[in-house]
Amino acid sequence: MMNRRSILLSGAALAAPALLTACAEAPAVVSSAPPPPATQAPGFYRYKVGSLNVTTVNDGFASFPLNGFVVNKPLAEVQAVLRANFEPEDRLRVPFNVTFVETRRGLVAFDAGNGALAPTDTRGRMIANMAAAGIDPTKVVAVVISHFHGDHISGLTTAEGLRAFPNAEVVVPQTEWRFWNDAGNESRSPERQRSSFANTARRFQVYDGRIRIIRDNAEVMPGIRAVAAHGHTPGHTAYHIADGDAQLMYVADTTNRPVPMALNPGWHAVVDFDAAMAEATRRRMYDRLSADRVAMTGYHFPFPAYGHLTREGDGYRFRLADWQSTV
Amino acid sequence: MMNRRSILLSGAALAAPALLTACAEAPAVVSSAPPPPATQAPGFYRYKVGSLNVTTVNDGFASFPLNGFVVNKPLAEVQAVLRANFEPEDRLRVPFNVTFVETRRGLVAFDAGNGALAPTDTRGRMIANMAAAGIDPTKVVAVVISHFHGDHISGLTTAEGLRAFPNAEVVVPQTEWRFWNDAGNESRSPERQRSSFANTARRFQVYDGRIRIIRDNAEVMPGIRAVAAHGHTPGHTAYHIADGDAQLMYVADTTNRPVPMALNPGWHAVVDFDAAMAEATRRRMYDRLSADRVAMTGYHFPFPAYGHLTREGDGYRFRLADWQSTV
Repeated sequence: MMNRRSILLSGAALAAPALLTACAEAPAVVSSAPPPPATQAPGFYRYKVGSLNVTTVNDGFASFPLNGFVVNKPLAEVQAVLRANFEPEDRLRVPFNVTFVETRRGLVAFDAGNGALAPTDTRGRMIANMAAAGIDPTKVVAVVISHFHGDHISGLTTAEGLRAFPNAEVVVPQTEWRFWNDAGNESRSPERQRSSFANTARRFQVYDGRIRIIRDNAEVMPGIRAVAAHGHTPGHTAYHIADGDAQLMYVADTTNRPVPMALNPGWHAVVDFDAAMAEATRRRMYDRLSADRVAMTGYHFPFPAYGHLTREGDGYRFRLADWQSTV
Repeated sequence: MMNRRSILLSGAALAAPALLTACAEAPAVVSSAPPPPATQAPGFYRYKVGSLNVTTVNDGFASFPLNGFVVNKPLAEVQAVLRANFEPEDRLRVPFNVTFVETRRGLVAFDAGNGALAPTDTRGRMIANMAAAGIDPTKVVAVVISHFHGDHISGLTTAEGLRAFPNAEVVVPQTEWRFWNDAGNESRSPERQRSSFANTARRFQVYDGRIRIIRDNAEVMPGIRAVAAHGHTPGHTAYHIADGDAQLMYVADTTNRPVPMALNPGWHAVVDFDAAMAEATRRRMYDRLSADRVAMTGYHFPFPAYGHLTREGDGYRFRLADWQSTV
């Protein structure tokens, strides 16, 4: 088989079938240059919440076997929903998105990305995408954490174990902080979540003296309020961002990917710590967000992860807002 | 009112309410640098059709008064659909997207963007976004035109009236070519479309000797086939792109924005030349695309404009495919 370049160079590429033509002669254009590399656009996107600039920064994705991801439904039922939504039926591609808000106090990040958490072939893109967006990690004044799973906190540190956000305070929910800092809870935790105890110690240590622990539903700073959303982890927390009448809810991992998980809020993901509590939380929160038509973003939602929820059947459809070429 | 910078410099920014805190002291971080400019990410996106690389390049948007856009429905009914879909109710923001396919014969563009067509404040972004994507206009071997409205052909020429794609042939549908090159048709055309006669002459002139006129449903080159989709203009043409079993339909302006126009295929847009024919065409094409689950892109679809159609009520819902950080 001829490769692409040899086909181009041979000139065979332009021996077109004789269609009706107004050409005086066939254009004698044969490009000998290799095609541009198939690189993707940088993963950032800007929008406004009132007068505040918000930037979604993509941190890549992880790919999970679909089999076993939903623990209370047969695989075939899960596959049928994915097929109906034009998604692959063998693996679930789960994106990561970190939201940055330019507040009047400075730049605030919501969660910290995967950092150098292995495997790094498809994730850990946040710092590069921040650079593309013109976001300097040293300018981040606060990193507000939803929960302590590795994909949300490992990016607090660099591969060398230093602070990735050297000048930031780290804001953490009290319930979450206490749970993962008490080794006595390890035996009460699902086996696949037990590594979070050691990872918690590892990622927060370099922020000693810079950690602010907030109570359930506390104000983080003017316009930013914690919203307890326990279940996915014991202290999992969403954040409500407001500027005047404009608002945005960062739901974090209240659900994983909206297709299929928000469409089916009764489906229990293997990544949920307390699946029944997580379900009750997401139904309560998504009922409100859809009824009140509140703009939202989610950590594992399809980039740029900004849109709204509508009711659909027993669940919710995430409607990505139209991409805009201006901010 | 203090401006943002003076608030930051005053130190007031960090006088946080005394929440529960584990900080030894509040982090003394006050950034005096101005925030990064709120620029949007470059408007390009890559995906695969089989082994072919496809790039959507955004050309910005135009904004139309909603009042009068749908000619056969009361404004309030149109507004209700937009409101239900989280869209503004006063103006319709219509994006432009040019699709580039790296074929075995070289790089092919589908339509040519607005170029320097006025107004240029929000449109004419294609060349800059091509540069961001690493796409060199001199490497384009063919520009395949769907129809001759100004936003699709004006980008054939630069602001100086030169060929924007200096080495390209231009492929045009015969029905469209004949119609807009016959001044006798002017009196038979809707008044707002009459400028297309002069614009057609102006944009194609510099491609003299490089224009290939194809019949309805002809093969453009191996894997690319014209699909007559008359109505939006007399010779409006979609294109079917295939590589092995993989396929993509470029529907061009078979509908304008899918919200609200694909949702309501019986709504007649003021931009359609023959609204009844356009409706029949879109129902026929969208019936097939949704039933066969064919991947598609459209010129005025929300960027990156790549996804699928599903039936919804009497119409069709466009489901944007998940953005992927890898191609």
